[in-house]
Formats: sequence, C-alpha cells, structure tokens
Amino acid sequence: MEHDATDLAPTDDLDEIERRLRMPLSEAMLTQRAVRRVRPDPVAPAVVRRLIELALEAPTGSNGQNWEFVVVTDRATKARLQAQYRRAWAVYGGLGERVRGDDPQTARILRSVRWQVEHFTEIPVLVVACLRGGSKLPYLPSPAVAASSHYGSIYPSVQNLLLAARAVGLGASLITLPLWSVTMARRILGLPLTVEPCCIVPLGWPVGRYGTKPRRPVDEVIHHERYGTAATGD
Amino acid sequence: MEHDATDLAPTDDLDEIERRLRMPLSEAMLTQRAVRRVRPDPVAPAVVRRLIELALEAPTGSNGQNWEFVVVTDRATKARLQAQYRRAWAVYGGLGERVRGDDPQTARILRSVRWQVEHFTEIPVLVVACLRGGSKLPYLPSPAVAASSHYGSIYPSVQNLLLAARAVGLGASLITLPLWSVTMARRILGLPLTVEPCCIVPLGWPVGRYGTKPRRPVDEVIHHERYGTAATGD
Repeated sequence: MEHDATDLAPTDDLDEIERRLRMPLSEAMLTQRAVRRVRPDPVAPAVVRRLIELALEAPTGSNGQNWEFVVVTDRATKARLQAQYRRAWAVYGGLGERVRGDDPQTARILRSVRWQVEHFTEIPVLVVACLRGGSKLPYLPSPAVAASSHYGSIYPSVQNLLLAARAVGLGASLITLPLWSVTMARRILGLPLTVEPCCIVPLGWPVGRYGTKPRRPVDEVIHHERYGTAATGD
Repeated sequence: MEHDATDLAPTDDLDEIERRLRMPLSEAMLTQRAVRRVRPDPVAPAVVRRLIELALEAPTGSNGQNWEFVVVTDRATKARLQAQYRRAWAVYGGLGERVRGDDPQTARILRSVRWQVEHFTEIPVLVVACLRGGSKLPYLPSPAVAASSHYGSIYPSVQNLLLAARAVGLGASLITLPLWSVTMARRILGLPLTVEPCCIVPLGWPVGRYGTKPRRPVDEVIHHERYGTAATGD
C-alpha cells in the first residue's frame, strides 16, 4: 500500500495534530514504516510531548509505569551519540553488507541506516526510551521470562510513539545501535545506574514518501494449537 | 476517560470488524487497557487472524520478521498453561499481596489477575507471541542492547494486537507468568528450542466495561537533553 506522507505538511498547530491523530487505527498500522531520511527543520516540543503522552497509554507490567523518556535536541549530545552509532555501524553494517548485501531489501535498509548514521546530528529530535529498575511488585521467578516482561514494559509504549508519529506525518524509526555501550550512553545522557536506555526513536519531518513494506503472509506465522501447523511453518 | 466497551457487541462479521478497526488512533490508545474478565463464548478464527495480520505491520529489527504466533483454543492445552500460571501466581501473587496489597490500584490488579488464573481454561483464545532465534543480519556487539533489540522485535507487534483487540471490542491483556518455565511452555506448545515463547495475549468478548486507567503525568517522565530534568524526575 503506497501512501504519500508528504501531503502531511510540517505543522506545530496542536488542533491539526489532534485531527491527524484521529487517523483510522488500521490505516496507521498499515502505513507505518521506518522513515529514516528526515529534514533538519525543528519539530515543535509540544508535538513531541503529545506523542510521548500517547506512548504512556500503553501497558506496563503490573502497571509499574517505570518508563522515562529523554528528549535530545542538543547538537553536541547528538554528536556524541552519533560517534557511538558510527562505531557500532562500522562493525554491524560491514558484516551486514558481507552477509546479506546481495538481498535488495536488506541492501535498501543498509543504505537507509547509513544515511541515518551520517546525518544523525541533523535529525531534529531523538527520543531515548528508558526503563527504571525495580517494579511495583516483586520480580519474576525465571530469568528468561523476567527479561521478556522487562522489555515488555517499554516496547508497547515505543510502538504507540511510532504509530502516533506516523499519524501526524513525522518520520520515525526504532534503533538500538547508538546504545551498544550502555555505559557510554548513560554517561552521555546523564542516566543513573538504575535507569537503562532501551532504544532511540529519531523524529523529523520526512524528506520523501512512505513506501511499501514487505511482510510475511499471515498464514505463515499463525500456528494452530501447537507450533509447526502454520501454512509454511518450519 | 470512561468508555463503554459493551456497546461493541460480539461479532464475526468481517466487514463490521474492518469498520471497528477504523477507530481513531488516539481514541484506541486512550481507551486501551487490560481487560481480563471475558466471556467463554468463542471468538471467530477469522477475527483472530485479522488481529494477528495487523500485528505483523509492526517493525522488527532489520525487518527480520522472526515472529510466530501460536493460537490456543484447545481446553487441554489451556489447562496445562493454567497449571503453570497457577504455580507462578502462588509465589508472585502472594508476594504482591504482602508487599503492595494495601495499595488500592495494585489490589484491583491482583484481584483481576486472580480471576484470570482461575478462569484460564474458559478464556476462548490465547495468542502466544514467540520469537525465532537468528536474525537476517549478524547479532549485536553488546549483550544488554542485544536483549533489548531482541524483545523490541516482538512487543511492537503485541501492542498492535492489543490496540486492534480494543478497537474491535475484544478484551485483551498482556501476560508472561504462564511462561515462567520456558522449558515447560515449549513442551506444552510443541515449540522447538529455536523458538522462544515471549508472552501471551488472552482474548475474549468482555464481561464488563473498559474503565479508567491511572497514568503518571507526562511531564514527570519527559527529561530534556539529560536525565533528571523532568518536572518531578528522580
């Protein structure tokens, strides 16, 4: 489904933002995608605040709401995060090119990420989604499920942020590479040891259009009663 | 914001489902909440399939789409998962009551979860969201960010599932306790070692209404440039 995001012109009019946020749910989901190429023009703080407010409507384990969002617009801070991103990308992107560079879809993602790495300081807003340690209820008995429950308290809110960004016409993506060294990320963002940076959502008004989005057919991923019963399950 | 979910009567009419899925995005987010008390009446498989189809519109790391969804409606399988849930709840719920049972909001959640544990076999559909190991691109250099990126490839889709459930009027919640023993969960669901069960979304037509949802004020969780600058940041 090809949608034109350029018809959603940049705006800081909050009434217009609310109007756009009333986009039909299914349309927002169907046309959501990573949009990494964005303009350097500022995004109004009140718009970012509204998107984060909607992120807070998502669930957290035991309603702990142990989320924190650091909004970075300062160029010096972005440059320090960019240095981290560049370092991780030198390893990860290089490997990706060698291993999967011949696949056109992966090659397209790699090009788009490289653009983002190179232009990271020009992206107007970086939202760093974080989790504070310690929940309202005592912790889970199993390490594997504890980890899943932990991140299950931040990524639903991140998805709300991404869907809301799409509805208002902002380009957004979900990245973790600039945080590869959690120690460095904490230092750059002034985070105490009790606060873990989980991912970054760069935001800006898009350069181009929302394009198509390749997806596995649903019957390939639905298993009935037991695993292995999907149409082409493996 | 008090919304009445009971006006969305159970339906298996897919045109009506599509109509409901066009609920304004902001309204779906604002009225989403855990709805655990559901009726035993079946939910049409085509409706569950449509919700999962929308879940697949969410992002995954490097567009790996390494998700799998096991849809459980079989009573015997639900009973085995219930036994696991009960065991974890005996520890976790008991601790919760001792530590936070005097807080009215936590007490309400605990009551609602206890209902879910006791009626688990009567819940018509359990969707188990899973991740297959191995992504399309080589793995990340850091363990902490690797874990975050890993679960960041399933919870955005789970949030789509929850929002879509809310839009069509289905009660839904996000739970992990029945999976506390990943080994047992794998055995019950026939999952190979390469597939990790991450969480369960129980689905059913709700008994009651969607109620209010307590949230921290947004200015308490937004930090500007560096952590510790929120209105009441700690």
